Amino acid sequence: MEEEIERLPILRVGEQGRSEVEDTVVREFPLTIILNERELVTLLCSPTKLEFLTAGYLWSEGLIESKKEIREMKLDREKGVVRVEAGRMVDVPFKPLLASGGGRDIASLSARKVGAGPQIKISASRVFFLMEGFREYSRVFEATGGVHSAALYEADNLIIFSEDIGRHNAIDKVLGECLLRDIPTDGHIMITSGRVSSEILLRVARRNIPLLISRSAPTNLGVRLASDLGVTLIGFARGRRMNVYAHGWRVVD
Amino acid sequence: MEEEIERLPILRVGEQGRSEVEDTVVREFPLTIILNERELVTLLCSPTKLEFLTAGYLWSEGLIESKKEIREMKLDREKGVVRVEAGRMVDVPFKPLLASGGGRDIASLSARKVGAGPQIKISASRVFFLMEGFREYSRVFEATGGVHSAALYEADNLIIFSEDIGRHNAIDKVLGECLLRDIPTDGHIMITSGRVSSEILLRVARRNIPLLISRSAPTNLGVRLASDLGVTLIGFARGRRMNVYAHGWRVVD
Repeated sequence: MEEEIERLPILRVGEQGRSEVEDTVVREFPLTIILNERELVTLLCSPTKLEFLTAGYLWSEGLIESKKEIREMKLDREKGVVRVEAGRMVDVPFKPLLASGGGRDIASLSARKVGAGPQIKISASRVFFLMEGFREYSRVFEATGGVHSAALYEADNLIIFSEDIGRHNAIDKVLGECLLRDIPTDGHIMITSGRVSSEILLRVARRNIPLLISRSAPTNLGVRLASDLGVTLIGFARGRRMNVYAHGWRVVD
Repeated sequence: MEEEIERLPILRVGEQGRSEVEDTVVREFPLTIILNERELVTLLCSPTKLEFLTAGYLWSEGLIESKKEIREMKLDREKGVVRVEAGRMVDVPFKPLLASGGGRDIASLSARKVGAGPQIKISASRVFFLMEGFREYSRVFEATGGVHSAALYEADNLIIFSEDIGRHNAIDKVLGECLLRDIPTDGHIMITSGRVSSEILLRVARRNIPLLISRSAPTNLGVRLASDLGVTLIGFARGRRMNVYAHGWRVVD
């Protein structure tokens, strides 16, 4: 946790006047990815799980499909550079889709319909229970109010948890870890603190994850894609309330 | 406001059981910018002020410096495409810095120190007052929980207000409007709902805006840049409290 935050003196101003106190802010780390000797992108991220972030980012951008395609990955943490040699040569110009944040070309990625296989269901009380645990893990957020969290669950079991200042990065860290550690995601549950845009939905659907739960709001494209791709999309899961935006048949009593 | 949101049926689940209700989600609009016949990027944004967003994005990326450099801008709203002919030809490969969201190459932009000119000061109660007004304007956020807001004030007067699903976009819309409508920003105040990362700070400093107020947290790089560039950075301005992270001398009693 220490590497994700920085303590510094601030001036706190309120009704009772002002005082100099020590406060905590979240750390922002520039990580430059060099793919096959070519500078690809600089991500601003939290300085944890950087190899997983790199793998997840490359996968999310459609630049790699599997772990096999990564021949070498060398992280130089001092310089904030990660050099990757990956199987397919990238000779098309790199055109990221800059969202609200993160990158992804929607049209170029063939999104497969989820859920033909995994017919998992979940009860509302189980969702509330999972969100409670998810919140407990989100320590950095509590300390600084500045990061997003993402987690992969298999039924009730937390498999992977990641935090990052970027909501895309948090999810890419989870998916990159799955990729590099050969962790299956079929039929699992993804939980995120952040807004569910089309990019998030596509990432999740491509890993055949049928259940996506967020503390925040979805966008209209997020809902449409969830509906089209067979993903159960739950938003505003807070306390003992939630909204189900798509494929509510998986949410049982 | 209608164009920024979409109404759809959802399933609301709570302690009292479940009910089908109509809910509102924020709209996510893909806008592809074609600069000098070359596809530059696709932004996911809220479908308002698209010309301002385009100009603001090009300026933020360092691709244009002034309004004069834009020879032509044609928006095709149906197709989600904006074609721009701009003065300087872009023949360097486009390498965006993908943050947590949005794009910007920190190193390549010469950030100028702010504040040698504008010696404005602000009282704490004035900050609280401005934030109250800012909140009132943030209607879409209230309705959907899914957008960011940004606003430019000259002393107590609201000059420009923008909303977007992306926090960078919201600020780029404000700055693009300033650019296209020749609105000065020197000595003004920028307010944002979103986190203050290095990218946000650089945008604001480049427009010589000495005061940046956010409802959210800054990152450590945001604080460092504010400190280096002479910007007064206020975070967590909520209700009648706030934290001053840099150049507190501008905040008076």
